[in-house]
Amino acid sequence: MKILIIGAHGTIGKRITERLSGKHEVITAGRNSGDLRVDLTSKKSIQDLFEQVKGLDACLCTAASGAMDNFRSLTELDLLINMKGKLLGQVNTVLIGQHYLNDNGCFTLTSGIFADRPSKGVTGGGMISGALHSFVLSAAVELERGLRVNVVSPGMAEDSAADFSRFFPDLKPVGMGRIVDAYVETIEKDNTGEIIRVYE
Amino acid sequence: MKILIIGAHGTIGKRITERLSGKHEVITAGRNSGDLRVDLTSKKSIQDLFEQVKGLDACLCTAASGAMDNFRSLTELDLLINMKGKLLGQVNTVLIGQHYLNDNGCFTLTSGIFADRPSKGVTGGGMISGALHSFVLSAAVELERGLRVNVVSPGMAEDSAADFSRFFPDLKPVGMGRIVDAYVETIEKDNTGEIIRVYE
Repeated sequence: MKILIIGAHGTIGKRITERLSGKHEVITAGRNSGDLRVDLTSKKSIQDLFEQVKGLDACLCTAASGAMDNFRSLTELDLLINMKGKLLGQVNTVLIGQHYLNDNGCFTLTSGIFADRPSKGVTGGGMISGALHSFVLSAAVELERGLRVNVVSPGMAEDSAADFSRFFPDLKPVGMGRIVDAYVETIEKDNTGEIIRVYE
Repeated sequence: MKILIIGAHGTIGKRITERLSGKHEVITAGRNSGDLRVDLTSKKSIQDLFEQVKGLDACLCTAASGAMDNFRSLTELDLLINMKGKLLGQVNTVLIGQHYLNDNGCFTLTSGIFADRPSKGVTGGGMISGALHSFVLSAAVELERGLRVNVVSPGMAEDSAADFSRFFPDLKPVGMGRIVDAYVETIEKDNTGEIIRVYE
């Protein structure tokens, strides 16, 4: 399979890239590194990316993380800025990519635990992930030509626990192997419209 | 209790207003009608509304519906316009209103079935409702002074079935009494962070 991994040098993306590189033709993309460059906050940049890599069977997006927020002073503008990459960038990847992927190709997006399990300081992150979940349910009934779409909702990844566990002491780190398995299953199985929650 | 109903002349809002008016001090607000005017797409208008009605015990928001969309040509801009009222307007109602409601006051927002049960032509509507669900989970852990927040997710309301059932033939209309009950319970009970799904 010909697989595009967006965010291939991020915490999760690099593990997926390692796992898939032997078995598949993997093309990596990222903001600052990878075979190709893409800025997920730019519709044009996403369009340019798909113009460069035709004949894709799968597109995995692990890019972009949300900012933390302070609920007492949170504004609509903060939320819109937060949504720009992780929500609208991933949505655009599907909306634009639907016209490029091979028949029966698949998209896999990345949300996160805060969609379903709130924590202080991540209202924007929760909303983004909740919107992504509903987007994937909807996109699965809309996509044509056998295209599939799923979303992986990881808890706190083991490899980022050193940076984030102080903000979320209640979250138990999830092993990278389990997270990577979830992404790999979305390309190897024929599921669609699934929200794959990877946490206890 | 002193209760503000935003969207009080809409399909659901007018039934809630009828039910609560005898028992409580009800203030109605809407874009074009009601005791007070409010434009949910304007942060300033929401702020002005709360400046006019201090001492509120509850704020129920039933305003704003989403537009339908065509997935093959759907754009980020379509989604942002769709989000403006129903998502960001309701979020702003809580973000701004948190500084005005009485201690232990409550907010009740309105999402919809498409968050969880997709249907063709309502990707934006689904995303808005999914984001609202996660917002309410998050806001419930953030709000101070005993403030509560819940969201009612109705299926197709009986009173709007004549207009909408042709678009959603699979949806069974939900009786108005059941929908109104859900809103009333949010002000009479002490639940918070609940997504109340009102459909089969």
